[in-house]
Amino acid sequence: RERTTGYSLSRGGLQAEAQPLVVYTSDQAHSSVEKAALLAGFGRANLRLIAHDEAYALRPAALEAAICQDIRDGRKPCAIVATAGTTICTAFDPIDAIAALARQYHLWLHVDAAMAGAAMILPECRSLWQGIEEADSLVFNAHKWPGAAFDCSLYYVRDPEHLIRVLSTNPSYLQSSADGRVKNLRDWGIPLGRRFRALKLWCLLRAEGVTNLQARLRRDLANAQWLAQQVSSTPLWRVLAPVRLQTVCVRHAPPGLQGQALDRHTLAWVERINRSGAAYLTPAILDGRWMVRVSIGAETTAREHVAALWERMRQEAEQAWPSQAD
Amino acid sequence: RERTTGYSLSRGGLQAEAQPLVVYTSDQAHSSVEKAALLAGFGRANLRLIAHDEAYALRPAALEAAICQDIRDGRKPCAIVATAGTTICTAFDPIDAIAALARQYHLWLHVDAAMAGAAMILPECRSLWQGIEEADSLVFNAHKWPGAAFDCSLYYVRDPEHLIRVLSTNPSYLQSSADGRVKNLRDWGIPLGRRFRALKLWCLLRAEGVTNLQARLRRDLANAQWLAQQVSSTPLWRVLAPVRLQTVCVRHAPPGLQGQALDRHTLAWVERINRSGAAYLTPAILDGRWMVRVSIGAETTAREHVAALWERMRQEAEQAWPSQAD
Repeated sequence: RERTTGYSLSRGGLQAEAQPLVVYTSDQAHSSVEKAALLAGFGRANLRLIAHDEAYALRPAALEAAICQDIRDGRKPCAIVATAGTTICTAFDPIDAIAALARQYHLWLHVDAAMAGAAMILPECRSLWQGIEEADSLVFNAHKWPGAAFDCSLYYVRDPEHLIRVLSTNPSYLQSSADGRVKNLRDWGIPLGRRFRALKLWCLLRAEGVTNLQARLRRDLANAQWLAQQVSSTPLWRVLAPVRLQTVCVRHAPPGLQGQALDRHTLAWVERINRSGAAYLTPAILDGRWMVRVSIGAETTAREHVAALWERMRQEAEQAWPSQAD
Repeated sequence: RERTTGYSLSRGGLQAEAQPLVVYTSDQAHSSVEKAALLAGFGRANLRLIAHDEAYALRPAALEAAICQDIRDGRKPCAIVATAGTTICTAFDPIDAIAALARQYHLWLHVDAAMAGAAMILPECRSLWQGIEEADSLVFNAHKWPGAAFDCSLYYVRDPEHLIRVLSTNPSYLQSSADGRVKNLRDWGIPLGRRFRALKLWCLLRAEGVTNLQARLRRDLANAQWLAQQVSSTPLWRVLAPVRLQTVCVRHAPPGLQGQALDRHTLAWVERINRSGAAYLTPAILDGRWMVRVSIGAETTAREHVAALWERMRQEAEQAWPSQAD
């Protein structure tokens, strides 16, 4: 916002800008993107939710069309938030194609890799976010998959001067003899005081080691592939999205069950599992229909637990439809 | 911002408003007020720093004059941030007079009581923020004087519907069976995930008890009054602002020493104390000149420590001016 407006905060603020600024993201992006855009004053009318492709990744052609339409309409494209690993089904927006558009149209490119960023400690996963080196900023949460104690979000920014110019304050009572010799992170973010969160990540890395962390993530990736294989090869069960990492999106679809009746069936069997305490699955809506996300990645979750869960899923879902399931 | 604009976030955002919104605060307010106003998109040109009186409290007459001028100029007064206990010298803006103006001109009244809010567990201190019941929102930091582990900021809001309307999100993957039965604090603030900070405050209250906390705060108030008395009755030393709570603002002013020479003297003696490790004092600028804040309130600070500090202050400040100090 501030880069696009030439630092309007030092003048009349966003409210004094002649052209409305527009933010772009995928219609699969996390709700926090919309929340952030609204809090920053852009307004819902200036947030574009771009259509996804069959793998639930943002369509660059649709993004470019939206940008061009806004320019024609006298608005000013400002930023694009791409997602590396969406919340619902771990889809990867094509960072390289999006980065090319960001460069061409002078957009800030932020990449939300909250969950999937951890996978990038595995060389074999890095092609999933090809082009990441062109991002202006990037977030991933070490408190998710890697298991650092909550909260521990990592924020990378290409040019911290943008942050410092917007976020720094220097009243007399905050000046110290260390100013100028240290990176003062109060000037990189919203809060003045901050806890020493990095220590938790350092402890995690020292305690587990990169090799062990990599092994654990690979175990989870293999478990997710195993579960997806079981689901795909079982009648009436479907895997609904490519399994890029450790989340498997599934639905049990008995013949003849459609629309809201199918939704009721889905929510009923997942509710039975969740109430049992045996596992916790997150239902979510994909393409307008409820389905079930199986997110594998707790530190202690081994193959036997995933196998037991799969057996339980079959029991709970198929008990209501014994004839079809036999 | 959203209340004043009739929730512009659901339309074109702050950037689509016809009239610029204005925020008011005292010129003694903490730097976080300016930072917040700039981040929220108001722009520095729409932030009014209102003049203070001889006790460093905001002048209500100056506030009303600024509001009226902005209305005449076609701007829209939006919010006033009053401070109960300023950072520099613990001045108290007159909440009741400010609240009357907020009511009259339809401003949101936020009260920043970050440090001094804790004092309100003492009945004898409550007259200092008379009118507080009219505030729309209020913050105080339990991690400051009371001693809860950092961070533990308490935010009170009169009508949480304003927050919920602006900050709530409800994607399918965040819905749960407890929705509607619990206060979901993700909808009251910016972050989605939050640590259980209230637990620290609960533990503090259970461990110390209100009576002990009150006794500790009263000890600190008495120590501050004692130090102020020592300073006031010592030649060449001055207490620069009313000692409302536990902060004493002092200066050692040898005769003939003025302007930048006086500043150099002040910064030199406080630097010697801080480097010694015996105590940590915060120099700050009051009315354009450096002075020294003595903030008394650590859990273990007793009268003997304050007395030893005062002796040290005299030594360090007066050694450079032996003839005048004798």
